[in-house]
Amino acid sequence: MRPFAGVEPPPAMVTRASTRICPGRVGGDKLLKSIEDAFSACRIRSGATLSFHHHLRNGDQVLNQVLAVAAARGLRDLRIAASSLFPVHATLADHMRSGVVTRISTAYASGPVAEAISRGELSTPVVMQTHGGRARAIEAGELHIDVAFIGAPAADRCGNLTGATGRAACGPLGYAMVDAQYADRVVGVTDHLAPYPVSPIDISQDQVDFIVKVDSIGDPAGILSGSTRPTTDRAGLQIAANAAEIIAQSGLLVEGFSFQAGAGGVSIATSMYVQQLMRDRAVQGSFGSGGITGNMVDMLTAGHFRSLFDVQCFDLKAVQSYRDDKRHQRMSASMYANPHNRGAVAHQLDAMLLGAAELDLDFNVNVTTGSNGVILGGSGGHADTAAGAKLALVTTRIASAAGPKIVERVGCVTTPGETIDAVVTEVGVAVHPRRSELRDRLLTAGIDVVTIGQLLDRATAITRGAPATPPKASSRIVGVVEYRDGRVIDLIRQVAS
Amino acid sequence: MRPFAGVEPPPAMVTRASTRICPGRVGGDKLLKSIEDAFSACRIRSGATLSFHHHLRNGDQVLNQVLAVAAARGLRDLRIAASSLFPVHATLADHMRSGVVTRISTAYASGPVAEAISRGELSTPVVMQTHGGRARAIEAGELHIDVAFIGAPAADRCGNLTGATGRAACGPLGYAMVDAQYADRVVGVTDHLAPYPVSPIDISQDQVDFIVKVDSIGDPAGILSGSTRPTTDRAGLQIAANAAEIIAQSGLLVEGFSFQAGAGGVSIATSMYVQQLMRDRAVQGSFGSGGITGNMVDMLTAGHFRSLFDVQCFDLKAVQSYRDDKRHQRMSASMYANPHNRGAVAHQLDAMLLGAAELDLDFNVNVTTGSNGVILGGSGGHADTAAGAKLALVTTRIASAAGPKIVERVGCVTTPGETIDAVVTEVGVAVHPRRSELRDRLLTAGIDVVTIGQLLDRATAITRGAPATPPKASSRIVGVVEYRDGRVIDLIRQVAS
Repeated sequence: MRPFAGVEPPPAMVTRASTRICPGRVGGDKLLKSIEDAFSACRIRSGATLSFHHHLRNGDQVLNQVLAVAAARGLRDLRIAASSLFPVHATLADHMRSGVVTRISTAYASGPVAEAISRGELSTPVVMQTHGGRARAIEAGELHIDVAFIGAPAADRCGNLTGATGRAACGPLGYAMVDAQYADRVVGVTDHLAPYPVSPIDISQDQVDFIVKVDSIGDPAGILSGSTRPTTDRAGLQIAANAAEIIAQSGLLVEGFSFQAGAGGVSIATSMYVQQLMRDRAVQGSFGSGGITGNMVDMLTAGHFRSLFDVQCFDLKAVQSYRDDKRHQRMSASMYANPHNRGAVAHQLDAMLLGAAELDLDFNVNVTTGSNGVILGGSGGHADTAAGAKLALVTTRIASAAGPKIVERVGCVTTPGETIDAVVTEVGVAVHPRRSELRDRLLTAGIDVVTIGQLLDRATAITRGAPATPPKASSRIVGVVEYRDGRVIDLIRQVAS
Repeated sequence: MRPFAGVEPPPAMVTRASTRICPGRVGGDKLLKSIEDAFSACRIRSGATLSFHHHLRNGDQVLNQVLAVAAARGLRDLRIAASSLFPVHATLADHMRSGVVTRISTAYASGPVAEAISRGELSTPVVMQTHGGRARAIEAGELHIDVAFIGAPAADRCGNLTGATGRAACGPLGYAMVDAQYADRVVGVTDHLAPYPVSPIDISQDQVDFIVKVDSIGDPAGILSGSTRPTTDRAGLQIAANAAEIIAQSGLLVEGFSFQAGAGGVSIATSMYVQQLMRDRAVQGSFGSGGITGNMVDMLTAGHFRSLFDVQCFDLKAVQSYRDDKRHQRMSASMYANPHNRGAVAHQLDAMLLGAAELDLDFNVNVTTGSNGVILGGSGGHADTAAGAKLALVTTRIASAAGPKIVERVGCVTTPGETIDAVVTEVGVAVHPRRSELRDRLLTAGIDVVTIGQLLDRATAITRGAPATPPKASSRIVGVVEYRDGRVIDLIRQVAS
């Protein structure tokens, strides 16, 4: 384990792992009758590493179905390499307790699994990665996948997979693309077996060993990620207006502007302000990226961007656009955010909107644990895009019901403060000290710039009641937080059960 | 060197090579001023392996420009890993003579380079691969590429490459996709630097180290591969009608039918007959594949296929379709035809039309050398699709001006006879002995089925004049012909200069 000690340029050269392929035979049939058959065909044994993607988000049923089979077969000590885990994956907590699963790596975890990990119910520390860091680790061979189970809204019997069509269409299968390239065995799991060939193909037949048809891969309604409408509350609108004004004054909102906003009411409100600014200035942007929302699709359709780069869809309007619009392009998790390839899309971003559970005096951001120390999320692309974007803006209220969000020291560092340019709140904007020229620009424009210390004071002043109880620094380590390059940026401690 | 001894199933497992990546830096610039600068940036030294693709076919100028720089820099002993070589690459013959280039591997060679190799002017034997075999060799690490030079009709400064747009638009860059994944360094060479990002992306920025802008990557008029119109001569039309009738009687022309025809007047005439049959039977095919012609595009547009799989375009109508129609999907050379991946498209083909320079009593096909022993082509996808298709039909006249095309023993085995189902000529059809059920079907349908011996007799009878002089079996070896799995299926001997 190498400790994080500040952002570094990538090494001059890295190597990617050799891979193992079981070649298909001419006339061979990939279609299996059940997930059980896939376990037999792939010879999955105790101790194996199984990977999963999260494109169906809180609607996913593939991971649950696969692990139910693993448990029924009496397997033990499995490692789960998931791109993200949601409340829908509650049964994984049971498998942790029973010893079916003893190791987990993921870029995000919320719900019962996250809480069980925080209570110490996984026998080894969870490895929390970034989306780009996960791709890097797989490519480097640090995270070797024995079998990738890839939920596919549509698949053909030769193994081509797509997220564009089918009952549970979810958009491009960007996270799973890396798994398919590096896993020893690749199993497509679908509830819609389509005539050969599916189109557009996200993961192609040359990369897929088997196809299993199941009754349902999950509930597409679970794809929705937070709010898909702009915020309507006063504080949220104030933050959005401030963020848009900073982008307007940053010098970046010119021809070729690029933008990633993620989901959530404040982000969408900010995007709508930005859209208005682009219209007013007659600026055409180069690309919008990320998890794509309908709002970003509107910006493409209106001509504000030439293209979208989509690693996953956040709503069904985005799914439809991916299916129908050639300018709406898929990207793999590696292309999106891996710091060790020849140039990630995240490194081309002008402006990026980021959330925060906590942000501290050094601008470090925590989106991994709550103020009580319990895991509630994880980086996803947070640390990746912060490192890549020219203007990384954290938009946040200064406090929530749980307590202050601007704190002296975050309970867990997800994203190092040196990659954050400014934090935008409803009571003022604080600019990172290394961006003094940005601070001057904003002051000149009449924006309410304050110090991070002043934000801390205001946050402390308005929060009352007993503060949450963070875990003791001496308690057992239940999680290791990896920065995108694999160095350990923080540890997560066990909380009282 | 393992000798070919009959078609075998693939090994149970193969390994793919580890790769080396020089990670891009945030804010790094990939744009170089010249090919010279790319040589410096990639530290290209004597003995290096440089790769090239042939999507601009006989219009390509990238290989010539790169080798001119290599020669000017005094480099020696380079290995050229080209997907194909055309008459336009004549300067490569000079570089062979001067020692700048001493090793070549390619799937096809015609023109001055092929002739110079046949005369013994390359200091080591050329390695003739198949398109799928080349992809396999690169992935396996047998053919390690130091630097891939990828001509791109359009590119952006972040390294995304496309063949869909630009002055020299050529269609999907399918052959180069494998090079980009496995080469140590990848240089995109373009004459059209487009705003970021290009769309649709064939090879993405995470795989490309540098972009060089040149005045011209070549002449798009050179893309045209042979005739793009149906044959009009009597013998050609007879062959086409026979081939279509065999497909009609094969039992394969049902819902889901798949087809690859390549270019050339007889193939296009056959396709047009097949199109009529599909219309008459109200059959919708699954896919057309291959090098794609405008004729295949017409079949997509008319609804005869659900999709096209395109590894390279053979004419400009195909290029336009690739740009505009989502159902017209790209495939890499590996997805197309690599026998050692999890399932190639070529292995899903129902009917395949193949050409021949010579075909012998064992149905072995030669498309590598002429009757005088001089290299005039090579497999390309010939051996790959013959091995994969359920019905591999060779369509050929029984003789040409140069002499008989049905011979006792081919001068060079490109494609083993056991993978050929029938040969279709203007004077009858011969079915491979292992396909007796096909022979019976055709006889029942009233098709003029003859033996291969009878075709040989007829070919011998109508050809007069002095036969060409093949090289002596004792003369120096100038080429090694690899079957798609890498085993050596034949050798090419030096001809008199």
